[in-house]
Amino acid sequence: MNNENSPVEEIIEVLRKAPKVALFSHVSPDGDCIGSMLAMGLALEKMGKEVSFYNPDPVPSNLRFLPAASRISRELPNPSPQTWMFVDCTDLQRVNLAVSQIPSETMVLNLDHHISNQFFGDLNWIDAQACACGELAVTLISQLGIEIDRDMATNLYTAIVTDSGCFQYSNTTAQTHRLTAELLDTGLDLSGIHHNLFDQKPLAQLRLLQYALDSLEIHAEGQLAVMSLCLEDFQKSGATQELSEGLVNHIRSIAGVEVAVLLKEVGPQEIKGGLRSNQWLNVNEIAAHFGGGGHKRAAGCTLGVPMTEAKQSIRSAIEEALRLGRDH
Amino acid sequence: MNNENSPVEEIIEVLRKAPKVALFSHVSPDGDCIGSMLAMGLALEKMGKEVSFYNPDPVPSNLRFLPAASRISRELPNPSPQTWMFVDCTDLQRVNLAVSQIPSETMVLNLDHHISNQFFGDLNWIDAQACACGELAVTLISQLGIEIDRDMATNLYTAIVTDSGCFQYSNTTAQTHRLTAELLDTGLDLSGIHHNLFDQKPLAQLRLLQYALDSLEIHAEGQLAVMSLCLEDFQKSGATQELSEGLVNHIRSIAGVEVAVLLKEVGPQEIKGGLRSNQWLNVNEIAAHFGGGGHKRAAGCTLGVPMTEAKQSIRSAIEEALRLGRDH
Repeated sequence: MNNENSPVEEIIEVLRKAPKVALFSHVSPDGDCIGSMLAMGLALEKMGKEVSFYNPDPVPSNLRFLPAASRISRELPNPSPQTWMFVDCTDLQRVNLAVSQIPSETMVLNLDHHISNQFFGDLNWIDAQACACGELAVTLISQLGIEIDRDMATNLYTAIVTDSGCFQYSNTTAQTHRLTAELLDTGLDLSGIHHNLFDQKPLAQLRLLQYALDSLEIHAEGQLAVMSLCLEDFQKSGATQELSEGLVNHIRSIAGVEVAVLLKEVGPQEIKGGLRSNQWLNVNEIAAHFGGGGHKRAAGCTLGVPMTEAKQSIRSAIEEALRLGRDH
Repeated sequence: MNNENSPVEEIIEVLRKAPKVALFSHVSPDGDCIGSMLAMGLALEKMGKEVSFYNPDPVPSNLRFLPAASRISRELPNPSPQTWMFVDCTDLQRVNLAVSQIPSETMVLNLDHHISNQFFGDLNWIDAQACACGELAVTLISQLGIEIDRDMATNLYTAIVTDSGCFQYSNTTAQTHRLTAELLDTGLDLSGIHHNLFDQKPLAQLRLLQYALDSLEIHAEGQLAVMSLCLEDFQKSGATQELSEGLVNHIRSIAGVEVAVLLKEVGPQEIKGGLRSNQWLNVNEIAAHFGGGGHKRAAGCTLGVPMTEAKQSIRSAIEEALRLGRDH
């Protein structure tokens, strides 16, 4: 192996020579891992390769419109090709795989944009500057000399638009927009893609939002917004716990709010708190105080007390932090 | 005047020669007209021109962070410079102006992206392909030979991100993303801009959403979603009528929904209906049936009956149309 080459050039060399490639994406699949994997596979097929697509979980309903999505299998490829490519996976656990399940002699390629990637491949191209693995896939496909067609572009656009939060997250760069422009040049059906991706909210999720809004409290002179959902709310709405994800953003975006909290009753005397801040308050410290953690602007914790008590404790801790912050 | 020149070249010629330029934007100002106008003005100042900014209305609170926004005046420039430039205005009425208010000898420049533009300027650059007037402003500033700095870019990015619905509306093109990439090259504070623009929801608007969701009904086997707001809901929430705009999208994006309706009581026996469809139903025809109108996918009408009756009439009309559509 020529170590003077960049990993991209080495990966291209391996892919050019491989007659068969197995592609892998992570559990709880999202638009980025599915879209990037499918686009890579379609490009390799255009080069005459035989490809297979693997994901341990079912494809979410809002991603089933993606070209080639129906070909994703929950069975490991058998016989196993000599080249395996992992897309958007920090480590093998993300694919529910153990090292022992990879046949020896397999060349493992690892394409990812997570800073926490474990470099588990024989060749690893990890670019934490990319907002989505889809950005790496666009570059790789172009460098393989394959013209990106509409089917690939639909997959790649989905990868980028979902992982960049519609170009709103701070991981979005000038490069993100430049690569997206190239995808739009293929004549993408933007309305169709957005409708498929984003207009598929379960009714139960809106019901959950309704119950959450019914519980909305504003404290600390408008700086703190708190909502809560009890077990009964989940039962009445028919919503699963996952459907409550993202609800906290509805109150985080109220004018003047610095901290937004959603408290969920997940069991008797078991309250999960999701905390978000906008500009300065370190919610990681608040969550850590209750045995949880996360990031400065998004953190979580679990409290083993009834809802009323949990609400009071978290509210007090945040009000105290807001007061201290102002005095600094 | 050299008619062989494109309007852009002629506009550039006029701007190069003008020592003073007055800039105008439309009533009920939005991110595009304010952002494009401010960026044009800042660029002209860099060329050594004296500029003034006019808008008949106050700048909305979520746009006041824009560089130079505090300089926008509600008074017409006095003395009046010889060059006036209108940004994002289909006609003079959009600026609350009559032709008689423009001094003779004034050179009127008209920069817009609305297909309905009235070509009221001496020179008109109208490009209905552009998703925002901001796209035209980026091009014009570049062609004037001015390097776009961070302040201009903050204004121009705001123009584009608001008028393209965060790059989700169907007016978004490859060119939109290419121009946006150029703006990001200046080192924009994306998180700050998005927070200023989008995280300024009045609490009253969430209360209104809560009351609207409380009224949510699903009909036609999940294809029709209807919400209603009565006068009391507006009173309880403290929300103005305008704050109900956009609420209908929360239910338009429910999986399986083809038509979403929001009915608002605006007076005794006066119900305003806002209708949205997703893929095929022509809501313009439904609205027309009740004396209203609009577009295929977004229309409105007013009914002079009590809420219960209005709801029943609109529901019947839509259920009938959904049935007919299926039979075609």
